[in-house]
Amino acid sequence: MSESEESKARVAALKREAAIKAVSYVEDGMAVGLGTGSTAKFMIDALGERVRKEGLRIRAIPTSEASANQASALSIPITNFSDDPELDIAIDGADEVQAGSLFLIKGRGGALLREKIVAVSARRFVVIVDESKLVDDLGTHMPVPVEIIPWGWERVENLLCKTGARHCQPRRNDDGSLYQTDNHNIIIDCDYERIEDPRALADQIISITGVVDHGLFLDVTTEVLVAGTGGLRRLAL
Amino acid sequence: MSESEESKARVAALKREAAIKAVSYVEDGMAVGLGTGSTAKFMIDALGERVRKEGLRIRAIPTSEASANQASALSIPITNFSDDPELDIAIDGADEVQAGSLFLIKGRGGALLREKIVAVSARRFVVIVDESKLVDDLGTHMPVPVEIIPWGWERVENLLCKTGARHCQPRRNDDGSLYQTDNHNIIIDCDYERIEDPRALADQIISITGVVDHGLFLDVTTEVLVAGTGGLRRLAL
Repeated sequence: MSESEESKARVAALKREAAIKAVSYVEDGMAVGLGTGSTAKFMIDALGERVRKEGLRIRAIPTSEASANQASALSIPITNFSDDPELDIAIDGADEVQAGSLFLIKGRGGALLREKIVAVSARRFVVIVDESKLVDDLGTHMPVPVEIIPWGWERVENLLCKTGARHCQPRRNDDGSLYQTDNHNIIIDCDYERIEDPRALADQIISITGVVDHGLFLDVTTEVLVAGTGGLRRLAL
Repeated sequence: MSESEESKARVAALKREAAIKAVSYVEDGMAVGLGTGSTAKFMIDALGERVRKEGLRIRAIPTSEASANQASALSIPITNFSDDPELDIAIDGADEVQAGSLFLIKGRGGALLREKIVAVSARRFVVIVDESKLVDDLGTHMPVPVEIIPWGWERVENLLCKTGARHCQPRRNDDGSLYQTDNHNIIIDCDYERIEDPRALADQIISITGVVDHGLFLDVTTEVLVAGTGGLRRLAL
């Protein structure tokens, strides 16, 4: 194994460990929100294992087609918000975590809106990350993805640029066409370099007509499990 | 003509008069936002007449397919937000107008989002109504249409009901299926009976994850032309 392959394998092992820990919070009879992404994949695997081995009875709402397919393959029963308007727990990854506040940036995978609906509908929202995702200030490594409606997007992008972003650009597919979300919307990635006041920025972004939602997840996370070389750490408010 | 037919014809004549007045504000070289609905239809007709008779040179952004088709048929050139990020004027109808504040409820026709993007992008936003649309308190005759994403809509409806609505219901087509907007979203009509604090309600609604936008148009109207039996009245702040 090369050095970078070794490092990748180490991060994967750490994430798997954190995923198993998060899944240990799930109890019989719970409605569970399933995140999307590489970390959520480990978590759904771990959950499937508990369903298979322990006969754990749960109902799940997945936040993407990929997570839904994975859950179905593992015989995890799927529910919906009509039957389960509130979830007992939701577990997901994140692209950045501000350690002090547990504020997040999410949405690099393009599923931020479903992920946010699930997160705010859960009594307990557990986030799993490896330690490279911890930041002092949000925006350090990641732009904020903003989901907007396609009609008049140039106008909405124009207004987004006035929220203090260093630059804003529509997310594109490899062929140059605009990336489309599961909800038929597009994503503008807004690079703020360093976000001094995430609450004020979130208010500013959401007040723009044409914006559907954004990747700032504030006041919603109840705990973060951080997988680091020194072991597993749990951050809570 | 029956009495109700006479009354309909009278209202139509009044609206046409108001539409002609609104269109008189449009000047050569302007970028113009075109609303949607029965009143906007008169306005687009009047604008087409000025283009044809006076050779008025304008560029227009229509807020629906119907208005786009009508404008094209009248040889009104169409522009977009890439070429014209700001509009000189936009003209539209409304479902309710609060006389003191010029706050509106819009969206009975289902085009509220495009209408709002156009309205907030215009330096001057002129609203045309007949006097039956004037109310002391918003919500008196009309529910507030709220555009939400289809995924998880039961959950979002559930949260909307907690904003003080007397009842909330998804808008449906005649065959019972959910009505779909131009943006692939659905509409929840929220009946508040009487809205005491429109700004607070708007903030509450827009903060719900899954809400795209709503029919409360606040702080955006610059003037209202009211067609009444006593003639034309102009309300401005």
